[in-house]
Amino acid sequence: MNLQIFTTGGTFDKLYYDALSDFQIGDPTVDDLLREARVDFSYRVDSLLKKDSLDLTDEDRALIRDQVAACEHRHILIIHGTDTMTNTAEALRGIAGKVIVFTGSMQPARMRQSDAPFNLGLAIGALQLLPDGLYIAMSGQVFEAGKVRKNRSEGRFEGQ
Amino acid sequence: MNLQIFTTGGTFDKLYYDALSDFQIGDPTVDDLLREARVDFSYRVDSLLKKDSLDLTDEDRALIRDQVAACEHRHILIIHGTDTMTNTAEALRGIAGKVIVFTGSMQPARMRQSDAPFNLGLAIGALQLLPDGLYIAMSGQVFEAGKVRKNRSEGRFEGQ
Amino acid sequence: MNLQIFTTGGTFDKLYYDALSDFQIGDPTVDDLLREARVDFSYRVDSLLKKDSLDLTDEDRALIRDQVAACEHRHILIIHGTDTMTNTAEALRGIAGKVIVFTGSMQPARMRQSDAPFNLGLAIGALQLLPDGLYIAMSGQVFEAGKVRKNRSEGRFEGQ
Amino acid sequence: MNLQIFTTGGTFDKLYYDALSDFQIGDPTVDDLLREARVDFSYRVDSLLKKDSLDLTDEDRALIRDQVAACEHRHILIIHGTDTMTNTAEALRGIAGKVIVFTGSMQPARMRQSDAPFNLGLAIGALQLLPDGLYIAMSGQVFEAGKVRKNRSEGRFEGQ
Repeated sequence: MNLQIFTTGGTFDKLYYDALSDFQIGDPTVDDLLREARVDFSYRVDSLLKKDSLDLTDEDRALIRDQVAACEHRHILIIHGTDTMTNTAEALRGIAGKVIVFTGSMQPARMRQSDAPFNLGLAIGALQLLPDGLYIAMSGQVFEAGKVRKNRSEGRFEGQ
Repeated sequence: MNLQIFTTGGTFDKLYYDALSDFQIGDPTVDDLLREARVDFSYRVDSLLKKDSLDLTDEDRALIRDQVAACEHRHILIIHGTDTMTNTAEALRGIAGKVIVFTGSMQPARMRQSDAPFNLGLAIGALQLLPDGLYIAMSGQVFEAGKVRKNRSEGRFEGQ
Repeated sequence: MNLQIFTTGGTFDKLYYDALSDFQIGDPTVDDLLREARVDFSYRVDSLLKKDSLDLTDEDRALIRDQVAACEHRHILIIHGTDTMTNTAEALRGIAGKVIVFTGSMQPARMRQSDAPFNLGLAIGALQLLPDGLYIAMSGQVFEAGKVRKNRSEGRFEGQ
Repeated sequence: MNLQIFTTGGTFDKLYYDALSDFQIGDPTVDDLLREARVDFSYRVDSLLKKDSLDLTDEDRALIRDQVAACEHRHILIIHGTDTMTNTAEALRGIAGKVIVFTGSMQPARMRQSDAPFNLGLAIGALQLLPDGLYIAMSGQVFEAGKVRKNRSEGRFEGQ
């Protein structure tokens, strides 16, 4: 597997930034997590955006779509904020010949307790087995895009 | 997915036990990891053994086989030491109608930096997509049992 | 040593609260940290406030002062946000017969990388050796209150 | 404070070494911990030995003594295995004009839950306040060397 990873921001990469007493989105953590996970495949990480997913614009989604469409590899992982992950997935409809999996996390990867490393494994386990299409890997499950929603009050993704 | 998890020991569950200044196998960590990962499916954890996988006997493997064969669920995850994971997989040959995935880790889940949560996600992402059979999920990859070996000097699993 | 610990909030106890994609002050973490540290002395933790220290009012400081003055023990540790830690220390001037040490952290204790456990140790090492008075333990140093300020741009406390 | 830190091995610096399914003493972790703690004083770390403290010989203790005696700084922190920490302290008797504090940990610093960062803070808080002498900072307390023992079954240091 030759994996292309695009990061867009979201909770996954949030850090605690003291001077403003605020969380902000830091550099992508995925490379550290993959080294910790001792993965043995080729991958490349490109940071496209560093935004809370509630702040993503149509232009941002057009940028993501262009990058995904132009990517030479078949396997694409997109790390994305959970709040509008399903919207961005819809914006990628119609890109053929690719397995595109979104994941993110409910707790930042930089927290002591986080779903980020597990979710990354979940997405990568799914990526190499799925047929071409758009998917969301969250809450320990792999969903087809369009058949999943975030249940915000329960803090999980569920099929619909 | 109704997931049955069997733990057998191995590095995954090792803890540092001071009185002997030695690592020993502790209680299974998988339940804590799955809560941290906020998974939303039914699972059950049974601790069958607490052994370094180099110490597993034929009787131990017969026990694992019996438990797997008797399990009512189709999806089975086995957490196992990496050194003889492939041997135990061979001992389960011929069990029909089940997706059986082995995983483990090179660093204990209780370490600050460990491949355990990622590997757990990898195995669970694969489990729900694979056809019936025996598999090993390690090093960021999903291998069919019988077509993989541990490269001990490199600290990874690779196809063969 | 019979240690009274008062928590008031601040970065030390911040958690990441997903539904708002924001941080909030959670339950005190000090008890978990002291168990992890395997301390062997008597202590009691009382949570007085759960506030960012920029939001502390005169009433809040009067409450802290009343609680400290009424405390039967000589050794008092106050976990406090770093931004106005020195102000609250000034508000405790004149309380006799007590060793009062403030500490806090620049990164939440719940982060993977945090100064919180070290700072807690620093404060407790100092507490049992200091004469009566008001002190701030931060940045690996023990300062007398009134002779220290937070250098916000450098993210550290320094003598003045 | 100009702090000289000597590391000698022990549980503090243990790592899990997979190829042998065993633990070994790794590179000193103290520098990472001090950066995480955001300390603001000068320090220097020298790794003298990488041994379980049960394996320290008279020659090893002579080496430690020589290095401590030759050190130009007044403040010296020694990171040491807990099992014979008190013996090495005795071997340093008679070195004048220095504050020498030993610390270590019951759980490796590389574990998710460890007393190492707290103990490091405890020792450093004590170091800057103590008069010249030999001390042990463990279990949340600061002991004079010669008046403390490790209670192995309880996993703590206690006065005697």
